[in-house]
Amino acid sequence: SRSISLAVIPGDGIGQEVVAEGLKVLSAVLPQDVKLETKTYDFGAKRWHETGETLTDADLAQLKEHDAILLGAIGDPSVPSGVLERGFLLKLRFAFDHHVNLRPGKLLPGVKSPLAGDPDIDFVVVREGTEGPYVGNGGVLRGGTPHEVATEVSLNTAFGIERVVRDAYARAQARPRKKLTLVHKNNVLVHAGHLWKNIFDKVGQEFPEVTTDYLHVDAATIFFVTQPERFDVIVTDNLFGDILTDLAAAVTGGIGLAASGNINPSGEFPSMFEPVHGSAPDIAGQGKADPTATVLSVALLLQHLGYRAEAARIEEAVAADLAERGEAQRSTSAIGDALAARLS
Amino acid sequence: SRSISLAVIPGDGIGQEVVAEGLKVLSAVLPQDVKLETKTYDFGAKRWHETGETLTDADLAQLKEHDAILLGAIGDPSVPSGVLERGFLLKLRFAFDHHVNLRPGKLLPGVKSPLAGDPDIDFVVVREGTEGPYVGNGGVLRGGTPHEVATEVSLNTAFGIERVVRDAYARAQARPRKKLTLVHKNNVLVHAGHLWKNIFDKVGQEFPEVTTDYLHVDAATIFFVTQPERFDVIVTDNLFGDILTDLAAAVTGGIGLAASGNINPSGEFPSMFEPVHGSAPDIAGQGKADPTATVLSVALLLQHLGYRAEAARIEEAVAADLAERGEAQRSTSAIGDALAARLS
Ligand SMILES: CC(C)[C@H](C(=O)O)[C@@H](O)C(=O)O
Ligand SMILES: CC(C)[C@H](C(=O)O)[C@@H](O)C(=O)O
Repeated sequence: SRSISLAVIPGDGIGQEVVAEGLKVLSAVLPQDVKLETKTYDFGAKRWHETGETLTDADLAQLKEHDAILLGAIGDPSVPSGVLERGFLLKLRFAFDHHVNLRPGKLLPGVKSPLAGDPDIDFVVVREGTEGPYVGNGGVLRGGTPHEVATEVSLNTAFGIERVVRDAYARAQARPRKKLTLVHKNNVLVHAGHLWKNIFDKVGQEFPEVTTDYLHVDAATIFFVTQPERFDVIVTDNLFGDILTDLAAAVTGGIGLAASGNINPSGEFPSMFEPVHGSAPDIAGQGKADPTATVLSVALLLQHLGYRAEAARIEEAVAADLAERGEAQRSTSAIGDALAARLS
Repeated sequence: SRSISLAVIPGDGIGQEVVAEGLKVLSAVLPQDVKLETKTYDFGAKRWHETGETLTDADLAQLKEHDAILLGAIGDPSVPSGVLERGFLLKLRFAFDHHVNLRPGKLLPGVKSPLAGDPDIDFVVVREGTEGPYVGNGGVLRGGTPHEVATEVSLNTAFGIERVVRDAYARAQARPRKKLTLVHKNNVLVHAGHLWKNIFDKVGQEFPEVTTDYLHVDAATIFFVTQPERFDVIVTDNLFGDILTDLAAAVTGGIGLAASGNINPSGEFPSMFEPVHGSAPDIAGQGKADPTATVLSVALLLQHLGYRAEAARIEEAVAADLAERGEAQRSTSAIGDALAARLS
């Protein structure tokens, strides 16, 4: 019989509320014969305040035993900016080699886009997750003086780029439009930019059916708002991907709906799935958070574990719910209940 | 009697056409007693093909003698990507210490935004122009092999940040809303991010009337499309500024309208003014380019040289023209003529 061992990290703020609904939907959609085992971990601001720990080697060893990780949100204003982001979120991405950071951008029926005319948006951003300006490489000289110099080093390797580019081509190949756009800034960041472009062109030879395209990151942001229909699959570096995926979330109805997967395609480490929105402390604990992004992250999780039919059923349920929802304000659990009801 | 010595660089593609209209409008708006002397320079793709030169020391010495520079566009598909961008545009910015890269984002009446509901947008981005990831610092190890490593180094100095931050505060102070937003990514790019934030907070003490705000760059892109009204003055680093100002141009009606100034506030070197759009080779030579962004860049130029009334008159003429224009397609010179007629 089949089973899923899931690490659950509710985390901070609305993370607690939305993860509860994500699990509700997961239970509702899974076939009877699949045994779901969950273990909840207490990472986040509270634990950091109590112990000073964000994510220890022992934690990583425990997490590694699971098939996948579902995360709500990590981050709280009571913790200095960057401590949990780097000490937990980025540490996990790097430790578990989550090099494919997958972020779909789809405007679902019934959802209002801030763009006029509700354009037809359906793309996926494949963001590199373990290199680039995110490596934490850099430093400070003469700190705190008028002569301070601070550096940030973006590290890019042929190995790291090639694997994510190949993954993106395979995703493009599997979609009807079969189009892949590389986004970088190779007219200015020439060293990294040329490496990305060369590998992009080289790997493309393995995928003759995929149409390719290159855009500078600044031009890409223009097309995100003027012509988002033009995108199918986008592959880009860690920082450009961070920026573009928030913009993608905005034009497809907001980060309340944006799902993401931090994927280790080889399966050597468990992949992690999380809504893009963060902990939203201003509305935490009030039952106001929209759990849809978490539910869609659960769909990505199921997809990754090979439960394609179940993933598709969740996406359909969400689409139907959003189309019906209209302007009605429902509570976090009411949305979760409605989705679970559609699925069981 | 007063005089302006202007270096004119039409450049490539539509640069030629739009600069002609910019000069037409400049002549029309200048008071009789101001003597305008222009000298045209042939920088761009053609010269590079003929001589291999982009911008020599002798060129820089000549340009330095002028009061200001008006540029159309530099860049052509016949030249490898990056050669003219770095060899001309960035070289000029760095050589003339254009550390204040000024880019207004204003949705003028009559202009359609891709955003629903045509929001009230009126902000200015102050982009640092001489540091950050644009310094060309980085390299390649094991180039062309499967073990290639490419780096890009972002250099940030207290000196460089403080002067642009102070300039941005002064601009915010002079505007009715008196609000300044710092955009960075200090939860990940900690070294540079903290330096920016510390200086931002320190300089803020000199401007007690200015309200301040901090946003991560990813969140800023969301607000650019969901709540652009919230911005007044934005200060940010070179790369984030590059990305945000293209997005700003998109939401305020397109890069056909976006003006920019590459400013050396001390006046040690002439400042350079250019439309953001680039050379648009696909429509070059057809009289289809909109010269409005160049005309608005001329307004920024006049403002910089102290001709405030004339700058304001150009802005009013552009606003009136856009409000009247509607969907009508006019040629490049027809738009220039209409604007000049309003001004003389
Ligand atoms: C919280 C932060 C470290 C993170 C990132 O920059 O990757 C977030 O913005 C995201 O996109 O997941
Ligand atoms: C052409 C390029 C070097 C330039 C930049 O990146 O600064 C352009 O995008 C701009 O914004 O002026």
